[in-house]
Amino acid sequence: MSHTIAVDWGTTRLRAFLLDAQGAVLERVSRPEGGMQNVPVAGFGAALQEAIAPWLRADPTVPVLMAGMVGSRNGWREAPYATTPASASDLARQMIKVDRTDRGTAFIIPGVIHQEQGRFDVMRGEETLIFGCKIMDGTIVLPGTHSKWAGLHGGKITRFATYMTGELFALLRGHSILGRLALDPEDASGFDRGLAVARQSGGLSHLLFSARADVLAGAMPGEAVGPYLSGLLIGAEITGALDVFGSGNVIVVADGVLEELYGKALQAFQIKATFISPENALIQGLSQIRAEV
Amino acid sequence: MSHTIAVDWGTTRLRAFLLDAQGAVLERVSRPEGGMQNVPVAGFGAALQEAIAPWLRADPTVPVLMAGMVGSRNGWREAPYATTPASASDLARQMIKVDRTDRGTAFIIPGVIHQEQGRFDVMRGEETLIFGCKIMDGTIVLPGTHSKWAGLHGGKITRFATYMTGELFALLRGHSILGRLALDPEDASGFDRGLAVARQSGGLSHLLFSARADVLAGAMPGEAVGPYLSGLLIGAEITGALDVFGSGNVIVVADGVLEELYGKALQAFQIKATFISPENALIQGLSQIRAEV
Repeated sequence: MSHTIAVDWGTTRLRAFLLDAQGAVLERVSRPEGGMQNVPVAGFGAALQEAIAPWLRADPTVPVLMAGMVGSRNGWREAPYATTPASASDLARQMIKVDRTDRGTAFIIPGVIHQEQGRFDVMRGEETLIFGCKIMDGTIVLPGTHSKWAGLHGGKITRFATYMTGELFALLRGHSILGRLALDPEDASGFDRGLAVARQSGGLSHLLFSARADVLAGAMPGEAVGPYLSGLLIGAEITGALDVFGSGNVIVVADGVLEELYGKALQAFQIKATFISPENALIQGLSQIRAEV
Repeated sequence: MSHTIAVDWGTTRLRAFLLDAQGAVLERVSRPEGGMQNVPVAGFGAALQEAIAPWLRADPTVPVLMAGMVGSRNGWREAPYATTPASASDLARQMIKVDRTDRGTAFIIPGVIHQEQGRFDVMRGEETLIFGCKIMDGTIVLPGTHSKWAGLHGGKITRFATYMTGELFALLRGHSILGRLALDPEDASGFDRGLAVARQSGGLSHLLFSARADVLAGAMPGEAVGPYLSGLLIGAEITGALDVFGSGNVIVVADGVLEELYGKALQAFQIKATFISPENALIQGLSQIRAEV
């Protein structure tokens, strides 16, 4: 197997990696402002070329694989979702082609769709990181704006669930009556307190209000409110997910602050977690899917 | 008992009623922009006088009772919360006095605070509506931005719980990725669908994401998204509250759209509901507390 150009093209940014036959990164480029939202409808080909042209000039036959929202309805071209159960080979087979401006071809990896209890769930981009974790069986957690938990069996994604943890935190912290009570500098002990309350009954829309009531009661300082909301929402995610995915070990695709927060939270729930960085998962996932072509 | 001036003074508006000895409304005034948020710190006395001076000129001795956020930390003067279990007579006894500009006195009814599982919950204003429902035992539901469910035993509020239903709806509909999918004119069938999903397991932050996934899957039209979110949040409130308050009959303090939505929702959960308008509950509640003075 020769080189591969691996592209992560999301809503906000574009990153590309030139990988060798073993999947090691030879070169990389990043366009922090190069995400879908800033690309004109007819401009995807030119934007890709701008990022990876030097590599293509060296070898125009190197395969280009792209993951992420570039394959959504508002992206370059829609790559229809693969259905669960979905393996890396299913994703490779269901990639769609787009024409590069240099007359070559690029491939877009499809997202995955899952149906359960009459409801749907979707992912686009995370499937690639999941296969980058290189496990056949187990549970993978991808924290973020829309956190995903995915179950793998026999090398296939058999089910997954999204939790709006990051988005709800941003909404509540930035726009709600609870956020207005939050003070700086933050008191990190609020996080553990939120984790503990998340395990209580009553439902999230009730438990959240305790942030306000506890402050009014003089039982929590405003400095703890931000971390409390974070702990409560991450704790609610874990509580809900353990019901679905069981309480075995998990692999968590996160680094930085999210690694720290999910590390603390999963430990509080006595779940053993192994961490892999999103970038490593991405590169390994693109290599894995490339190997199935 | 003589006349009473009953004042509902909230964050956004002020309403006042001149009541006769039987609690019937003789006259009323409303200041839609007269809420706490528009009153300068030293201006509460003048604002009250502006609203009720004609009635006081007729009889300066008529008692003035006020309920609502006027008694909060950012109001005229803080009326410390009464603790559960709390009766109408407890509230009457714990009213605080403020000086009117005409040298008379006005009374502020305290809110109520409840502690359970180490967390607090608070209400301010709703306690008056609850006693306006005139029951000794049972469950009262007050839908709104921060919906309250309250349990009464022997004429006392023994426990209550707040659900952030209305605020979460506004945040999600107005600021989230889910709201951006919502189209007009609304398809009301989304409401029943949301109610049904609210009864499924997984947790609110997971279930909410189905609004997006179902649309992307082509399983729900954008026109249903707004009502779906409404049904899901009201359904989550009811699911959580039934665990705490049991599934007996309830009295719901609501009119208009909220009466319609909670009527449909409680019926779907097979809960028998009786409705009373917020204004009637308010007036009866102020009369009730006045009678305990």
